[in-house]
Amino acid sequence: MSSGGVRANRRGRPGYDRESLLRVAVQVFNERGYDGTSMDDLSKRLGISKSAIYHHVAGKDELLQLAVDRALDGLFAAAEETAALRGRAIDRLEHLVRASVAVLVEQQPFVTLLLRVRGNTAVEKRALARRREFDHLVSGLVAQAEADGDIRPDIDPAIAARLLFGLVNSLIEWYRPRGGASGEQVADALCKVAFDGLRRRAAATGE
Amino acid sequence: MSSGGVRANRRGRPGYDRESLLRVAVQVFNERGYDGTSMDDLSKRLGISKSAIYHHVAGKDELLQLAVDRALDGLFAAAEETAALRGRAIDRLEHLVRASVAVLVEQQPFVTLLLRVRGNTAVEKRALARRREFDHLVSGLVAQAEADGDIRPDIDPAIAARLLFGLVNSLIEWYRPRGGASGEQVADALCKVAFDGLRRRAAATGE
Repeated sequence: MSSGGVRANRRGRPGYDRESLLRVAVQVFNERGYDGTSMDDLSKRLGISKSAIYHHVAGKDELLQLAVDRALDGLFAAAEETAALRGRAIDRLEHLVRASVAVLVEQQPFVTLLLRVRGNTAVEKRALARRREFDHLVSGLVAQAEADGDIRPDIDPAIAARLLFGLVNSLIEWYRPRGGASGEQVADALCKVAFDGLRRRAAATGE
Repeated sequence: MSSGGVRANRRGRPGYDRESLLRVAVQVFNERGYDGTSMDDLSKRLGISKSAIYHHVAGKDELLQLAVDRALDGLFAAAEETAALRGRAIDRLEHLVRASVAVLVEQQPFVTLLLRVRGNTAVEKRALARRREFDHLVSGLVAQAEADGDIRPDIDPAIAARLLFGLVNSLIEWYRPRGGASGEQVADALCKVAFDGLRRRAAATGE
């Protein structure tokens, strides 16, 4: 991850590179909603003029594009990595879930913004289309695992896929990297619940 | 659920009762974000003047209060119903999950708004406090089920509680009552995944 920090310029006002500007903007979008954030709001929060912002990006839209692409590129990289694996679909599915949790934990503000996109602009529509493409990859894996006989037959594969990624996406609502479980611990717990269930198994009780 | 409908008044403009006005307002809040919605936006969408809105409610804040209370009252009713049950904590937990899914499916727009509350106003802060109280009830049940030895010991109960209600809450993102699975089918699938896992069990493969 780039470490683009805020630096003070000669007049003592904060200076930004594109990366640090993007991070602050995404934080504001997540607090106020993208639609509810104006360039004035960004300018106030950043402590720089609007024209200083336009030095880095063409506008709000470009900031959104950069942010959702960061999240989506991570998820598609996880999907490509998964596609290159051999083995049963259920195991590849679990790999994809773990890799997606890692993306979500590393890029939490960007994924949060992505998951709240409503489709009001061209950038948002494109982001939603890429999200649907990713969902399609997931449902394909679930369907294949079902065909392999590795998923319980009493759950509809479409609902299973929704629940699985609903569970992953719900992390943005509560997971905080500081002071809590590590991303890996959360991925472990999530995969145990999703694939093997919360209830203690008969086999496991025979201690 | 109240069926408060829109009626046309003598001048042919739509008339609302408090319930139908609330429903439209909640829809607009969910589309634009509560912070991003002005009384002017509501007035435009409803097709009535702001003073006509003030005839029903004191303002945006009261609409939010009515909406989040609808969701929270439903969840607390489910919790009280659960508290009155006997039996093992794990089974009461599953009952609470089912009942919460029912509330979410029946009151989806209200719960959606509740889950997006950010805590910027007194009404929002109160709603967040009630949500925390509900979460506390859930974690209590999970901890008790863990103490009973009914939850797998390799998952932290706090994470288990988060995952469980993350899974329930994620329904607002994709569950649509029309044309899809019924609320009961979704509750069934969700409880199977959460409590028993997605993977076909060894016992179940011996057909």
